[in-house]
Amino acid sequence: MIERLSLNVWTTKGWSLPEAVAGCVRAGIPGIGLWRDKVEEVGVEHAVKLIADAGLTVTSLCRGGFFTVGPVAAADNRRAVQEAAALNAGVLVLVVGGLPPGSKDLPAAREMVTEGIAALAPYAAEHGIRLAVEPLHPMFCADRAVVATLGQALDIVDAIGAPDIGVCLDTYHVWWDPEVHRQIARAGDRIYAFQVCDFLVPIPADALLGRGHVGDGVVDIPALAQAVAESGYRGFTEVEIFNQQVWDTPGDETLRTLVARHQQYLAGIR
Amino acid sequence: MIERLSLNVWTTKGWSLPEAVAGCVRAGIPGIGLWRDKVEEVGVEHAVKLIADAGLTVTSLCRGGFFTVGPVAAADNRRAVQEAAALNAGVLVLVVGGLPPGSKDLPAAREMVTEGIAALAPYAAEHGIRLAVEPLHPMFCADRAVVATLGQALDIVDAIGAPDIGVCLDTYHVWWDPEVHRQIARAGDRIYAFQVCDFLVPIPADALLGRGHVGDGVVDIPALAQAVAESGYRGFTEVEIFNQQVWDTPGDETLRTLVARHQQYLAGIR
Repeated sequence: MIERLSLNVWTTKGWSLPEAVAGCVRAGIPGIGLWRDKVEEVGVEHAVKLIADAGLTVTSLCRGGFFTVGPVAAADNRRAVQEAAALNAGVLVLVVGGLPPGSKDLPAAREMVTEGIAALAPYAAEHGIRLAVEPLHPMFCADRAVVATLGQALDIVDAIGAPDIGVCLDTYHVWWDPEVHRQIARAGDRIYAFQVCDFLVPIPADALLGRGHVGDGVVDIPALAQAVAESGYRGFTEVEIFNQQVWDTPGDETLRTLVARHQQYLAGIR
Repeated sequence: MIERLSLNVWTTKGWSLPEAVAGCVRAGIPGIGLWRDKVEEVGVEHAVKLIADAGLTVTSLCRGGFFTVGPVAAADNRRAVQEAAALNAGVLVLVVGGLPPGSKDLPAAREMVTEGIAALAPYAAEHGIRLAVEPLHPMFCADRAVVATLGQALDIVDAIGAPDIGVCLDTYHVWWDPEVHRQIARAGDRIYAFQVCDFLVPIPADALLGRGHVGDGVVDIPALAQAVAESGYRGFTEVEIFNQQVWDTPGDETLRTLVARHQQYLAGIR
């Protein structure tokens, strides 16, 4: 059963969007998670047609966010919402940004994030797009996301108090958190996207690339997927892997691994 | 005012213990944080005499822990307690250990840790040694410490409920945590050791070595030190840096930097 499996296009970094779409069709993978850079290469309209013709479901668009870079973020985030709407993505994933350049003031950066999301929320709602705040592993706190835990992401969602704001959960980022199961239960129907990949040890020289196929690392991914299912989530499971070795592998082979691992570890979870 | 500054001996990795003791005396640094390997090189008795003759205060002994490796940990931890007592260290820092080999069961590993500390506690108390559970940055969760946050460390301390069990707080490991200020306040007089160094970005190829002098990274260390002082902590501030460039620098120069940074960032905190 791969009826809820989705390929995030960065997993097959070497493929263009048309190649990724064709690859999904060949592999029988019904979902696709998009990144704006891959969409931009072919244009939004062409991307929409490609994906529709292939019968794929868009499971998310990555990414909006980076609220801590300053006012320029607002305009870019509105464009991201427009693109998500045009692509029928449903969900825009927000990687919220790290510390502003030269700053060590985490509380201030976190306040910028809350204000930025709150300001974007009405625009997203008008376009029928749900915003998914993604906590990133604490090793990326300074340069990518000052939101480091699921609990913190939900606190922000609660503080804003608008409908259609939830979270994106990625096993790689949250597995270590002693609170994660409690927070998944708390999230309930506010989990808007579920991404999986494994955490590899040792961490490679480029810390961003220590993500592996489900089963290749240290994370009990089925336990997390089970908790997510029990919270009520019925959406796709998107596989997003940044890993040089995976990127050096032919895309069709990578997709066969995706399907095999999904069947081995995740297909039985309801 | 460097009256509460302490050199952790791994900051000057190239120095033997006698060299580190002499370096502290030259630099006017009154405290020294020990590691068992450095002590072992000269023997406990000689180490005790060296340190006493120099008039230094031992601020902690690193490290016990690694409860997840199995039964062998218990005997080694009792030896660590004995050494801490012989060295008048007062505090034994516990790095609790990662996942057991081949296991992905974090809850089970965490249970092993709680049981291991609980079993060690009476022995430590008999020897007048306080145990300090150290949460490590979540990037080390799999291979070094399944205790990843200060809140989790305090939960374990609470669960065991014995006197003389507290925490070791290292700015490098906890700075990213949205709960850290709340948990420092909760810790109160259970902070038994306070270690400082900065978190460098980008993370270097060996993730263990991304520690810098106070002020060289992204962490608002004075804010954390202020919170620790407000919790009632009146002990030493131990500088523990793992960094190849620092290790390649002559020790006396490193100690001058320690003193200068302490005066610049931390000496005014009461």
